[in-house]
Amino acid sequence: MFEQLGLIGCGLMGGSFALAMKKTGLVKRVVGYSKSPSTTDRARRLGVIDVEAPSALMAVSGADIVLVAVPVAATEATLKAIKHLVTPQMLIMDVGSTKADVVQSAQRALRDQVGSFVPAHPIAGSEVSGVEHADADLYNGRQIILTPTELTHTDQVERATHLWQALGCRVTRLSPQAHDGAFAAVSHLPHVLAFAMMNSIIGQDHGDDFLSLAGPGFRDFTRIAASDPKMWRDILLSNRHELIVQSRRFRQALHDIEQAMEKGHAQSLEDLLTLASEARAHWRMGAQKTAKLRSSPVDP
Amino acid sequence: MFEQLGLIGCGLMGGSFALAMKKTGLVKRVVGYSKSPSTTDRARRLGVIDVEAPSALMAVSGADIVLVAVPVAATEATLKAIKHLVTPQMLIMDVGSTKADVVQSAQRALRDQVGSFVPAHPIAGSEVSGVEHADADLYNGRQIILTPTELTHTDQVERATHLWQALGCRVTRLSPQAHDGAFAAVSHLPHVLAFAMMNSIIGQDHGDDFLSLAGPGFRDFTRIAASDPKMWRDILLSNRHELIVQSRRFRQALHDIEQAMEKGHAQSLEDLLTLASEARAHWRMGAQKTAKLRSSPVDP
Repeated sequence: MFEQLGLIGCGLMGGSFALAMKKTGLVKRVVGYSKSPSTTDRARRLGVIDVEAPSALMAVSGADIVLVAVPVAATEATLKAIKHLVTPQMLIMDVGSTKADVVQSAQRALRDQVGSFVPAHPIAGSEVSGVEHADADLYNGRQIILTPTELTHTDQVERATHLWQALGCRVTRLSPQAHDGAFAAVSHLPHVLAFAMMNSIIGQDHGDDFLSLAGPGFRDFTRIAASDPKMWRDILLSNRHELIVQSRRFRQALHDIEQAMEKGHAQSLEDLLTLASEARAHWRMGAQKTAKLRSSPVDP
Repeated sequence: MFEQLGLIGCGLMGGSFALAMKKTGLVKRVVGYSKSPSTTDRARRLGVIDVEAPSALMAVSGADIVLVAVPVAATEATLKAIKHLVTPQMLIMDVGSTKADVVQSAQRALRDQVGSFVPAHPIAGSEVSGVEHADADLYNGRQIILTPTELTHTDQVERATHLWQALGCRVTRLSPQAHDGAFAAVSHLPHVLAFAMMNSIIGQDHGDDFLSLAGPGFRDFTRIAASDPKMWRDILLSNRHELIVQSRRFRQALHDIEQAMEKGHAQSLEDLLTLASEARAHWRMGAQKTAKLRSSPVDP
């Protein structure tokens, strides 16, 4: 149980965390700050936060838990701005989609207080953003990846673990590097491909006509292309090295299919599609299988 | 109103058509045939068809409407097998995802009776297949593309149009070539990319671990990768020329994003993502916009 949540960034992710904490009775009071005063005001009117703070630092004042839910590129400046009030007792987390850079930012910004910071990435979200889409159940039933380092206080990692479990999440621990490699493959590259797919179509003479004919397969395939461009600009830049590795592998897999197609090798083509189809048909979101990846699934 | 539907291919698409025709009272009796006798038997037991036919030809006997719902590569052989019983009064349609090859197959197979054949592509379907997934509402609210040629009887095109409208579809007419270009872009290439994405991941050392971490974005992006490999082998081979054109355009769009990323050009990257994001956010499935594409949206 926490007394006061200091929420920095009252968007979809931060707002949903505040609502979930309130709904489960894990926090008494939420003090919120967003860069845009109108967002903070809206968050208060929507009941997502109880009190508006005029600055990130003021949102942290008196808090025993702090969530930094800002674009990953803003993490370092945000942590620097609050460093002054961080205590060893305070649990600080982020919700960023990349972790190696966030861990480095936190070390530079928080220095001797970095042990309070537990890097976190909840595998939830939406192509829509903004506090008006905040949802107390956004994290319920989802995975959360924690990427503590040797500098992170063990008891803070435990507190973070119990907190996310109380919100209905399955908690997995990974190194920041393993996290970034995995998410380049299963999240960041799919976003890049979906963005590129849209740009490829709208760049054509008949692009608008083509779009008017697209059906449910296209709808689902491109859903993530509607994601926030600024947020994804930061994620892609931050994780570009892992992304380039994944993109090269993807191009090879694409090349294999296209070669079979162009050469009219029906059996090779069918074999390649069967591999993909069976893998996807057997996949279940959130199924437990992380033993090999230097990870530690955390027992509830 | 039709007396008897001859259904050749009792899978998801054919079965759903039979159920929709019955539900709306557009047909009195359905005689069905599938290559696999167990499928035909299952279709009858599920009430999708009323009578099992021992051959495609026998399914056509006595029918005033015929739906050929087989993989596109089997269209020609199927039409040849039934040619003997085709009459000018009979409305014959397919549901294939490619149209230029289907039109050619139909001309070769049906010859002087090709005027009865109205090539059709309903923009519906699912990553699941089989008669057990047949659904009377699969086509309701969806688009259907008809691609008649100068050989197609005008009155058959009219009958096909009214029939699909009665099933709740919006009917659009395109040339077979325009159809194949558009669907290479908005359907066939997305399938190829989703297949390649799965193969790229499972081909890696930690592929299984990566998959266990994937979330809802990945789920939707790769849904179509679970599609039937044989069916898609045929579609990709059949439309490979248009597909290669679209793939080249896509690779350029991907290259543009990756270049901005690798060079750290934050503004260019943001601009490219904004283009994609806005296009996708404004897109609505089935929104009317086909004026430029030598197409004729048909008034209900």
